Parts: sequence; structure tokens; C-alpha cells
Amino acid sequence: MHVNARKHFAIPPDERVRLAEIDPGDTGSFTAEADAHQATHDALAAIADLQYRLYAEHRHALLIVLQAMDAGGKDGTIRHVFGALSPLSAYAHAFKEPTPEEAAHDFLWRVHKVTPGHGEIAIFNRSHYEDVLVVRVHDLVPEKVWSKRYARINAFEKTLVRGNTTILKFFLHISRDEQLRRFAQRLDDPAHQWKISESDYTERAYWDDYMRAYEAVLEKTSTARAPWYVIPADRKWFRNWAVAQIVAETLRTIDPKTRAPSVDIEEIRAKYHEVERSEHGA
Amino acid sequence: MHVNARKHFAIPPDERVRLAEIDPGDTGSFTAEADAHQATHDALAAIADLQYRLYAEHRHALLIVLQAMDAGGKDGTIRHVFGALSPLSAYAHAFKEPTPEEAAHDFLWRVHKVTPGHGEIAIFNRSHYEDVLVVRVHDLVPEKVWSKRYARINAFEKTLVRGNTTILKFFLHISRDEQLRRFAQRLDDPAHQWKISESDYTERAYWDDYMRAYEAVLEKTSTARAPWYVIPADRKWFRNWAVAQIVAETLRTIDPKTRAPSVDIEEIRAKYHEVERSEHGA
Repeated sequence: MHVNARKHFAIPPDERVRLAEIDPGDTGSFTAEADAHQATHDALAAIADLQYRLYAEHRHALLIVLQAMDAGGKDGTIRHVFGALSPLSAYAHAFKEPTPEEAAHDFLWRVHKVTPGHGEIAIFNRSHYEDVLVVRVHDLVPEKVWSKRYARINAFEKTLVRGNTTILKFFLHISRDEQLRRFAQRLDDPAHQWKISESDYTERAYWDDYMRAYEAVLEKTSTARAPWYVIPADRKWFRNWAVAQIVAETLRTIDPKTRAPSVDIEEIRAKYHEVERSEHGA
Repeated sequence: MHVNARKHFAIPPDERVRLAEIDPGDTGSFTAEADAHQATHDALAAIADLQYRLYAEHRHALLIVLQAMDAGGKDGTIRHVFGALSPLSAYAHAFKEPTPEEAAHDFLWRVHKVTPGHGEIAIFNRSHYEDVLVVRVHDLVPEKVWSKRYARINAFEKTLVRGNTTILKFFLHISRDEQLRRFAQRLDDPAHQWKISESDYTERAYWDDYMRAYEAVLEKTSTARAPWYVIPADRKWFRNWAVAQIVAETLRTIDPKTRAPSVDIEEIRAKYHEVERSEHGA
């Protein structure tokens, strides 16, 4: 599969999106899962190498936003794709229900605090988008409040981009049936029963409302500078390939260069020879 | 090499340590570097698996402290050993010179803020120990201040342990000659020249003072609950093996169990069947 994955999965700015028309079971032009594994492996190796160059250059930041319905594969993507990153300069941050302190601030306050610095890669497990998703679906704030947040989000992300942050936003797109299959698997797997929550089935009743809320997000906040990618995610191996491929392409485009030394190398070299002579004799 | 690595490299509590008597070039019972690679690979695979179990259990935290002289291999260890960890629940934190805000607080304030929560693994790239190392060597605070910090540190670490944090402290032990060799390599490698700083050679003049400061740290703060490990680190492959092995042994001892579900599984199972019937017919 030699497509430009970024172009293939990106939502163009201002485009009306109908998620029902995007097949969550899509596996692109892969005919065998094994082919995807090799391609994913290659992309992950490239990512690991480029992470170190990004860190060493200390000039660009990379922010990756992961959103999905429950059981959509956010944790799995972080383990299997972003597991290729070293904690040296990468971290994941999971956004939960706001604490009282967080709720006492504007909705972007807790988000801004954990954005990546130069040289760093941050992965957001959920994000500020929950404030126009769960908040909208359950009327947690009035429409006149949440409806103005799309513009606030775009302005916020523009600030980050101006600070040399590249932003990638992934919606891991699973089907309603696949969610139920994954819930069933969790019921039968003692190692994953802890992930089951009371809200799994009550939230499922709002599936269509969530789809509409996601469509609004994609339409209003997929910008040239901070695009959304809709990733067919029913097949975990295809999801992993697509995310890895887009991250690798993005890092290659950033193309981090070797950081210039902060000292005069010839001066230091002279110092080195002096030390060597004095310690080991001429 | 089937030794108990934790026992082999740990500094027993209250023991007088002479670093000159620990060979930085030691490679244990490995006769070939390739044997170490296989053993390291196995330990890293175990670590990756155990990290997920630690995360899922959400009951224990793991704090890893890395200290070393300049060019001692802290970054390399984070890349090559802790690269096996996923950012899902692991992060590295590098302590630099205190900011004005940090300097306006006690020396443990900035450290406590970034200790790991349950399920998390934190790697400290330098740490609160700098406050009895560089601070002591350069008289940045009076002796009557720094000399009391060992007890403060032990009390702090005891608090962390009581909060279910396991603490591993590694001193990556390189020889003076090896440091000079690594400085020379950096001079000749444009990709690593950015790591060169003016202070490399001036700090080197304080080598013996640093060794004495490290010996005091090892003697006063290696406790049963938060031991120091002195890792022979002239050979990077041996250093990687030893650190990986100790971390793997530690995680195996923690032995994270599957987290109990927070819900009644049979009740949820009934709900699942109800949803399945209503959506797909009986």
C-alpha cells in the first residue's frame, strides 16, 4: 500500500462528513494481514528513529490526539503503535472527568498545561474534544456554551502550531457491531473485565448522537494546520498500520535536523587535547 | 548469567562504599556481547508485558532514579532499556537547574509533583540526589544545609514507599578514562555535538569530589526499601542488560494481578444479552 496515508485519511477543511459513509471495516489495499504487519513494523522503526532526531533538534513538538467511542482502541493504539516511542521524550496523558480544580477553570486550562514542549511528543488519550462530545450529547453545559467552543479550540490549536507544534488528530472509527463484539470479549476475558463500566450500555444508547457530535467536530475543527484523520478501526492491525504510517509520514515531513552545538567545537577540541596530554602524557 | 541481579548490584544499607573498588568495566559472567543481547531482549520483553499488568492492576507505582557523571549513559539507558516501555503509563522526567519558582520551594517540592501514580512507571533523569551531589561539590548551599538532606530524602522516599511505590536507584558507574573517550566521540560525531557543554571539562576537574559525594549518597541513602544499585557502565551493552534485568526482577516480584472488575459481571452479562437480542433479534 503505497498511498500517501495522510492525504488518504485526512478530512479536508470545512467538508461535510457523513461517518456512515466511511467503512470502519476498510483494510485498504492490503490483501493479507501479514503484509500490514511488515509495513507497520517498518513505520514504527522509522518513528523510533525520528523521535530521537526530534528530541535532539529540540525545535518542534508533536501533539497526537486520540478520540474514539468506548472500546474504540485508544489504549491499544497507545500500546501497539506508540509503544515504539521511548519515554525519553514522549508521554501519554489521559483526560478523565474534570477534577473540581479543573472544572473551576476554562475547558482548555488543563489541556494547555500538558501540551508537548520542543523535542517532545505527547499523546492525548481523549482531549479537549470531549468538551464538544460527551458534553454536547449529555447537555452538560448549555448549547450556547458548547457551540462556541469549536472556534475556541481552533484558536487554541493555532496558538500551539505557531509555537512550532505539529498536531495530528485521530478518530478511531469502529462500527456499532464491533463495539458490542469487544464488550462481549471483555466479559469473557478476566484480564480485561476491569475495563467494563456501568456506562458501557447506557452510553451505547446515544450512539447516533455521538456520531452527529463527531461529524460536527470533523467539519468544524479539521483545519489545514491541525487535520483530523478518520481511521477505519474495526481491524486492529489496519488501524495500527494507518496511524503508524501517518505519524511516520508527518515526522519525515518535519525532518528534524541535527541540533547545532552550543559551543565552539574547535575550542573544545583544543581543551580535550590539553586534558588528554595532562592526564596521559604527550 | 543466572545470578540474582538485584542482590548482585545492590548496595547493602549502611555499608561503606569505595567506588574505586567497583570495576566500571565489569561484564559479569558474559563471555560474548551477543549473549547479553539475547538476555537483555528477553528482559525487555518481560518488562513490556509487566508494565501493562502494572497499569491494569492500578495498585503499585514504580520509580526509577538514574544518576551518573556526564556522558555516563542516562539518555542511552532511557532510549535502549526504557524504550521498551509504552508511554501509555510510563514517562521520563529530566531534572535541570531549578527554575526560580522551584528554587523558591524546598528541594523536594518539584520532585514530589512528578512522582508516579498507581499503575505508572516514572524514570528520573537526574533527581533530588543532585541536591547532595552538584550542590555539595560546588558549595551551592552551606554544609549544614546539605548534610541534613540525606535524612530528608530517606523520609521522603519512605512516604512514597508507604504509598505503594517501589523505588530503584541506579548509579551508572563509568571510569574517568571512559568519560574522556565519550567526550572525544562526541567531538567527532556531528549528530552528537549538541550534547557538548562548556562545563564538561571544568566539571571533570571535580571528579574525585563527585566520587566522594556519590559514596556518601550510597552509604546514607541505600535502604532496604529504596536500594541503590551501582551498575558497571563502561560497556553500554552490559549496563543495559544489568538495568533491564533488575527492573524485570523487580516487576516480577511486584507481580501485578488482574484488577478486579468494578461492576457485577453477571449483571452486565445480562445487560449484554438484552442489548444483543433487541439489536439483532432473538
